[in-house]
Amino acid sequence: MGGTPVLRYDPVMGFDRISILGVGLMGGSVGLACRRDASHSQIIGYNHKIDEIRRALDRHAIHEGTTDPIAAVMNADLVILCTPVGVFSKLMDAIAPALKQGAVVTDVGSTKESICRLAEKHPNIRFVGSHPMAGAEKHGIENARVDLLSGALCIVTPTDSTDPAALKIIEEFWQLLGMRTMRMSPEKHDQMTANISHLPHAIAAALVRIQSEESLQLAGRGFLDSTRIAAGDPALWQEILLENRENVRSGIVRMQIELQKLLEKLDANDATALHEWLKAAADTRRHLANPTNKSE
Amino acid sequence: MGGTPVLRYDPVMGFDRISILGVGLMGGSVGLACRRDASHSQIIGYNHKIDEIRRALDRHAIHEGTTDPIAAVMNADLVILCTPVGVFSKLMDAIAPALKQGAVVTDVGSTKESICRLAEKHPNIRFVGSHPMAGAEKHGIENARVDLLSGALCIVTPTDSTDPAALKIIEEFWQLLGMRTMRMSPEKHDQMTANISHLPHAIAAALVRIQSEESLQLAGRGFLDSTRIAAGDPALWQEILLENRENVRSGIVRMQIELQKLLEKLDANDATALHEWLKAAADTRRHLANPTNKSE
Repeated sequence: MGGTPVLRYDPVMGFDRISILGVGLMGGSVGLACRRDASHSQIIGYNHKIDEIRRALDRHAIHEGTTDPIAAVMNADLVILCTPVGVFSKLMDAIAPALKQGAVVTDVGSTKESICRLAEKHPNIRFVGSHPMAGAEKHGIENARVDLLSGALCIVTPTDSTDPAALKIIEEFWQLLGMRTMRMSPEKHDQMTANISHLPHAIAAALVRIQSEESLQLAGRGFLDSTRIAAGDPALWQEILLENRENVRSGIVRMQIELQKLLEKLDANDATALHEWLKAAADTRRHLANPTNKSE
Repeated sequence: MGGTPVLRYDPVMGFDRISILGVGLMGGSVGLACRRDASHSQIIGYNHKIDEIRRALDRHAIHEGTTDPIAAVMNADLVILCTPVGVFSKLMDAIAPALKQGAVVTDVGSTKESICRLAEKHPNIRFVGSHPMAGAEKHGIENARVDLLSGALCIVTPTDSTDPAALKIIEEFWQLLGMRTMRMSPEKHDQMTANISHLPHAIAAALVRIQSEESLQLAGRGFLDSTRIAAGDPALWQEILLENRENVRSGIVRMQIELQKLLEKLDANDATALHEWLKAAADTRRHLANPTNKSE
């Protein structure tokens, strides 16, 4: 974190130059939101596929595009990693020497501990981990939306080595795009999201997998809603589940234990105990606010 | 099914008198739909709570109401059991001697095998089991909606002792209210709905139960959608899960096995196998039609 930041960031005018690495669903939506809310900034998009850049330009999600990550981060004040998490290591190696002094780097990855550990290997990368909790089943720039992030929660994950000024800049950036922000350690983030996000995805996939062609004919709104997330990109979710596999594992084991408790109540034909088991869940679920961010 | 039916049913004019036993969410919605689509029929509502009858009258879901089930079915051409399933046995005992000759009786219960067996104990009840697959998390007449059933699927469950004429009348009745109908044996119905409806409810409740206050703060649209059904009436669902407990039990065991397979892939860090596991679910889910009946 050495050196005096020469970041061109102005609370009113924002950044001169924002670099988005990976212009798919998330990167494209970040770009569209930047065009709306950070209209003084020049938005540069990197993608390894030239077609995706062309589509991002067509959709006005970026001002300029390149297939060279080094060119993309040149002179950028803010760099946002929006590629699949599996590419982060290579990408950080490539951009680290090319970053402008003081540039702040963040990401949109769904797991945070391994990413923050990775960033710490590059002391010249002024990194703050972020997880904007918004998404959709569909992927690619064609599904990017200017309001994908609006009203949703963005978790930022500072560590002991995070520069407080960079943390503040990143929080204000997400807030500028209409997000609520919350600070949490990367470890805590990964535990919490395993339970509330990664596990539900695995469960939804399992629920779909155990159906037959016949039972699927009877699928009503309840089944469709409860398995909607199972339609998500398998490549993305395979990566998330493996990245966070220790926490996901714990969540699956807890589900198995909870289902075992349910089986015991059914076997005992215990209406009172079953009612209590269901009622606790119903009470908790009813108290949860409705989603503020509809992605469909 | 002895005796010549003297049912006053006309394909154009419909029934003279329709009796709805239980005017809560489902009974009230059936009543509202009858008022719209069977406007020549007189709709009589029974409920054990006088307040619920008043509200049903206020909402114009019924023309007349009574707390006496026998009075409610007098001279009715069609009787629809919409109370909780647990009351059916008593209710059938009470109404059987009072039914008009030829009157057709159906129900809206979520389980079918035990109900059809129960009806067969009353040879003078001309019964056809039905399961309109529509509902909502909220219950009570105040949440009844004229379009709750519109576009949704109604499964009718004939048995060897079902009168074919009565079956046809019941199918046409649900179709008149805008539903699609499908025939299925009661046993098959209970197996299929355990997998596609009852199990997802149990799973959603378990998913809510294993969360902590902290993780619930991070609940996004994915979690909210996948657990929406867990907010359903615990009394209703306790009854359904116990009524269909053998099939629900099988479904839970299948889920546990499927989750075990997932754990093995995570433990083996097998990205390819995990991707295939997720992709099969995503492909299946993407091919399912969107819900035609939105209940929120």
